[in-house]
Amino acid sequence: MKARGIDVLSFAVGEPDFNTPEPIIEAAKKALDQGMTKYAPSRGLPLLIEAIQRKTERENGFSCQANQVVVSCGAKHCLYNAFQVLLNPGDEAILFAPFWMTYADQVALADGIPVIVPTSAENGFQPDAAAIESAITPRTKVIVCNSPSNPTGGAWDRATVEAVAAIAERHNLTIVSDEIYEHLTYDGHQHTGFAQLGPETASRTVTILGVSKTYSMTGWRIGFAISPPEIATAMANIQDQVTSNATTFAQAGAAAALDSDPALVQKMAATFAERRAFGMQQLRKIDGLGVPSPKGAFYFFLDVSRFLGGEIADDCALAEHLLDKAHIATVPGSVFHAPGHIRFSYAAGLDTIAEGARRLGDALKGLQ
Amino acid sequence: MKARGIDVLSFAVGEPDFNTPEPIIEAAKKALDQGMTKYAPSRGLPLLIEAIQRKTERENGFSCQANQVVVSCGAKHCLYNAFQVLLNPGDEAILFAPFWMTYADQVALADGIPVIVPTSAENGFQPDAAAIESAITPRTKVIVCNSPSNPTGGAWDRATVEAVAAIAERHNLTIVSDEIYEHLTYDGHQHTGFAQLGPETASRTVTILGVSKTYSMTGWRIGFAISPPEIATAMANIQDQVTSNATTFAQAGAAAALDSDPALVQKMAATFAERRAFGMQQLRKIDGLGVPSPKGAFYFFLDVSRFLGGEIADDCALAEHLLDKAHIATVPGSVFHAPGHIRFSYAAGLDTIAEGARRLGDALKGLQ
Repeated sequence: MKARGIDVLSFAVGEPDFNTPEPIIEAAKKALDQGMTKYAPSRGLPLLIEAIQRKTERENGFSCQANQVVVSCGAKHCLYNAFQVLLNPGDEAILFAPFWMTYADQVALADGIPVIVPTSAENGFQPDAAAIESAITPRTKVIVCNSPSNPTGGAWDRATVEAVAAIAERHNLTIVSDEIYEHLTYDGHQHTGFAQLGPETASRTVTILGVSKTYSMTGWRIGFAISPPEIATAMANIQDQVTSNATTFAQAGAAAALDSDPALVQKMAATFAERRAFGMQQLRKIDGLGVPSPKGAFYFFLDVSRFLGGEIADDCALAEHLLDKAHIATVPGSVFHAPGHIRFSYAAGLDTIAEGARRLGDALKGLQ
Repeated sequence: MKARGIDVLSFAVGEPDFNTPEPIIEAAKKALDQGMTKYAPSRGLPLLIEAIQRKTERENGFSCQANQVVVSCGAKHCLYNAFQVLLNPGDEAILFAPFWMTYADQVALADGIPVIVPTSAENGFQPDAAAIESAITPRTKVIVCNSPSNPTGGAWDRATVEAVAAIAERHNLTIVSDEIYEHLTYDGHQHTGFAQLGPETASRTVTILGVSKTYSMTGWRIGFAISPPEIATAMANIQDQVTSNATTFAQAGAAAALDSDPALVQKMAATFAERRAFGMQQLRKIDGLGVPSPKGAFYFFLDVSRFLGGEIADDCALAEHLLDKAHIATVPGSVFHAPGHIRFSYAAGLDTIAEGARRLGDALKGLQ
């Protein structure tokens, strides 16, 4: 539609709208000039692995050895490696709905079975311990955690993280913890990762991190997993047969990002905080729309159920309707196993958010 | 050993020793400056897909549509996607030994079964039609071809390519043709790809190409597959759940490579031709060593069987012995399903090749 000249506003994307900060760009250009254009070890460039070790020590509250780190083509690729390694056919992986659809697809690609535990907006999309316990079977191998969450923006309190860790310990499960949005939290929320809880939890946790969301480096395709050594080795071995190393000079850029001035991240996070506050204010003017207060990431997970069932049957039809009639792109909640919702990304400027909220309000008004 | 200050010469690597040519580096730097740092379509950047379409038309003797192209993290990743898509559990894939070990591992990762058809140095490592026919079963789905070949340097005549294509047609098989070394051929050998044989063969062929070997871009991780549209779509779908797009600005560099002055490639190819001639001359001074005349790639696949069975039991022990005593790194043939051989890469300067051949000769002299 954009190509046809239609003024579509996209709130569908899962990437920051900023350019990658200049010092990181310069580091990659320097790496290109220095001939860092050849194969690297599949696990990652030593200089990046060292930067990752410094990063977890400094930011994540745990230290790791080089043999625990595997650098991959984005956090998505880390997750793929993890599921390939951790799941045998028929093994079950617990997912908390709403969830990023890739988790379920990757579990299926490993011949595993996704077992879905619902969460609710009322509880900030945090899981309930009893619900997890009742979903566990002898085939359960993995609990997939994602705080802050795509698509909900939900972020878990430390008590929730501890409760899930205790369940994992009790049932001898591996925690796959996707913490890619760790630096985007709001209203004073402090991100708690699993590996920081202590050695017992760290010894059963695959922590997935990366530079994509924190440093606006989605296209660089650099993510990394920190795992117990034997899991890391297995992940590196499979990656060695699938893609080899992530792009060598992009790894140099990622190392520069991790070692960069924290002001870079703070500035981007502050901008997102401003957009979030503004967006909530605008969206809450819309009668009947459910607008939670997400503590992390850059998404509003809007409850549109009051507008469905009439002219517009469901969230998928609504997303199409919004695109066709209001020229705004969103993602229907059904994609995240949460019908009755749409995901509205606020990785956009304030003017765009204001106009998007206005168009959304106008479109919904006609449906009530 | 190098880190300990030992003067090890490596003939083990599978990558050109040149830097990536300057115009390609500049294109990637420009892409970084222009903000090509965000997600791209999983299938590849349109500008690269268009460059690939021009390339196959110009260099490979066939044209393709955009929906036939999938850009991945190196040719290895293209192959992985292809096997994941083409093989169901228990399906058989024919491999020609000696072969690049990744083929067998990737077939196994797709729960397929590698069926190995041997080839011989006497026939330039080209397969025999009768041997292929006798390996075909009702479970055969794929024939994996690799001309010019890693590890042998063997390159198939047009008659061989046609014979294999005819077999594939007769048995309704898909051809996976890894042509990553297409531009490195010698002694007047003309590379023949499968897709250029005509629409019937093209309609059953996945052609794997890339910039790694041709433009000395191994660390960029950009390969591409040209397939029938329905196979390409399935490959893109699986890639979308494994890694998403290959690094965005690296794709811009790859597009610049494909559109670059052909003199860049000709110069590198001429250097390899000189090294090959010089290397053969040096290695043929060694009594008892089998040195074929490889028509492609940048490897000598040396028959060392006359030196084995005594002090040194096999090719694996010999490769270790050569590293420990002669300080030269090679790859044992067993890794390629060809015991009794070592792979000696000539992606090295003439002085290094001369010294390597001297050390190899000295080491083997003591073993006869």
